[in-house]
Amino acid sequence: MPGHRKRVPKPYRQVHQLAFSPLLFQAAMAARRTGVLAAVHASRAEGVVPEEVAARAGVSRYAARVLLEGCLALELVALEGGRYRLTDAGQLWLFDPMVNVNASFVQDVCYAGASRLEDSLRTGRPAGLSVFGPWSTIYEGLTALPPGVQDSWFAFDHFYSDAAFPLVFPRVFEPRPRRLLDVGGNTGKWALYCLRRDPDVEVAVLDHPGQLDRLRHNAIAAGLEARLHTVPIDLLDHGRAFPGGFDVVWMSQLLDCFGEPDIARLLERGAAALAPGGRIHILEAFWDRQANEVGELILQGLSLYFSCMANGTSRMYHSQDFLDLIASAGLQLESDEPIGTNHTLLTCVTSGSP
Amino acid sequence: MPGHRKRVPKPYRQVHQLAFSPLLFQAAMAARRTGVLAAVHASRAEGVVPEEVAARAGVSRYAARVLLEGCLALELVALEGGRYRLTDAGQLWLFDPMVNVNASFVQDVCYAGASRLEDSLRTGRPAGLSVFGPWSTIYEGLTALPPGVQDSWFAFDHFYSDAAFPLVFPRVFEPRPRRLLDVGGNTGKWALYCLRRDPDVEVAVLDHPGQLDRLRHNAIAAGLEARLHTVPIDLLDHGRAFPGGFDVVWMSQLLDCFGEPDIARLLERGAAALAPGGRIHILEAFWDRQANEVGELILQGLSLYFSCMANGTSRMYHSQDFLDLIASAGLQLESDEPIGTNHTLLTCVTSGSP
Repeated sequence: MPGHRKRVPKPYRQVHQLAFSPLLFQAAMAARRTGVLAAVHASRAEGVVPEEVAARAGVSRYAARVLLEGCLALELVALEGGRYRLTDAGQLWLFDPMVNVNASFVQDVCYAGASRLEDSLRTGRPAGLSVFGPWSTIYEGLTALPPGVQDSWFAFDHFYSDAAFPLVFPRVFEPRPRRLLDVGGNTGKWALYCLRRDPDVEVAVLDHPGQLDRLRHNAIAAGLEARLHTVPIDLLDHGRAFPGGFDVVWMSQLLDCFGEPDIARLLERGAAALAPGGRIHILEAFWDRQANEVGELILQGLSLYFSCMANGTSRMYHSQDFLDLIASAGLQLESDEPIGTNHTLLTCVTSGSP
Repeated sequence: MPGHRKRVPKPYRQVHQLAFSPLLFQAAMAARRTGVLAAVHASRAEGVVPEEVAARAGVSRYAARVLLEGCLALELVALEGGRYRLTDAGQLWLFDPMVNVNASFVQDVCYAGASRLEDSLRTGRPAGLSVFGPWSTIYEGLTALPPGVQDSWFAFDHFYSDAAFPLVFPRVFEPRPRRLLDVGGNTGKWALYCLRRDPDVEVAVLDHPGQLDRLRHNAIAAGLEARLHTVPIDLLDHGRAFPGGFDVVWMSQLLDCFGEPDIARLLERGAAALAPGGRIHILEAFWDRQANEVGELILQGLSLYFSCMANGTSRMYHSQDFLDLIASAGLQLESDEPIGTNHTLLTCVTSGSP
């Protein structure tokens, strides 16, 4: 009887669960995707026996039992008198949108390649990316990833940025910038947001050609293409200057995709693209600036994706890393503001600014 | 400052950690294998900065930071004033032999194939096994697995059985059995144990030819081959009778490798192999009979290995499943004894026995 057993010290359970965590993760994913957990949820407080779960989810009795027992180990379900019921954690695993976006991103984008993490860290290259293609960074191949993988990637990326844009837009547009340069603007979420809300602004977007094709398609669909300019570029080609004369250089969830030496060069190239009196806005999530330890955990986990899948050199940063890089690039920090629960907006001007 | 932050409710953290668990598992493995955690351990209570960890472990500063931050998310290390130190969980992750055996088994044998868990459960076949070879069960290919994978498999298998053998041997040999049939005897750990300790017993082992070749090699090296008999057999070929006339039929960590219909047939074939007055001994780990919740968690995790890698049909069982199967096979349970902290010895006789 579990109730009569000796409890083990917490760290002991913690490391044993860690040792089995890839198998248990797969059980939790399969239990959600097969409907096994939904069948437990449907039983509410009465609970349900494995045979009923199997019947409701349309899986074998064997599959239902294996998945229920895996979820029991994870405490997503509890077992009493032979009947399973959903725990609070099980509810969150089934229904919390952030948990779902993260879990699908990890499963679809990261799981297979993550086994190459150690190689990636030893070589400084994203060794896991070879499961999808021969690219040196994931950004080159983003629009060529298998459709399900791509969906999970973009859903993850947009989930975090979408919430920040409405909060940050008024601050960036308060001085009525006429020309905005969106560095690494991806498929255009921010660019289209700005074009839609400010009828006069002109936006130029720098990114890989695949992403820009999709952006242009999205802009035409929204009738916003007239004030949009796209410039295909490899951002790592530091010999190539950005176009110039911008009131705002915008770098959102961009610089964390680069290692520190490249960030320094990108800041310099961004500064050179400013019109007199212009500003660089950097929107980032720093792991030391999170409202709670879940935000911190997500960013520390995400760094591992950068190592093994994205580029082998970048990570989610500590805010001090960025403050140091900004100073080294000869920029002045004009403001440093929290945006929602996850993001920070750093606004920089060139030293020559008034 | 972490200390000033709002703590989130436990289930919330739990599911977010679960969503990132494959990446975090890889970070924990890489932190151990690269020496990053050993470098933190060496710093004892003073703690250590990432730059020193990188230098001691011979990895880049980037690799040290990414791995330390991943281990921070897992609470294997703690960070205070810029210095990392090992937690109690980190100590266990580095040094606990059971945790190490389990984690290497999961990484080397299970990780890649586990992504096929859902397919496996939908088809009743170990879909993940295709990462290693075209076999229908892992037992067919065991001695053809890549060497590192094989080492982790056998280390795992032996870790649990080795501890049980000295405890169980006196009970099985108290009536001085002359002929013992070891069903699925693998590479001979138990057979050689018996031959070494009882100078008169004859042991016959049934298993796949690859395992028996290795067993014979081990027996010759130990000078114990004279009283050893090996019979190559596919245990799933239920039309084929076992050899007969044995005082003991031994099934150790065997029946969990089969689905319930096959277990029923194996029990019948085992019963038919008994001499009058003989006994079937079943040594198993049941998840409801564990001394603590860690034992239960390990067995529930291990069931997932059976689903996606081993055979697609078996799992670690609840003791009641076995008591029901024994009764259905027309056997009588003579005794039911705990062995150490993990195992149970079920001793059965045929209904016709005195």
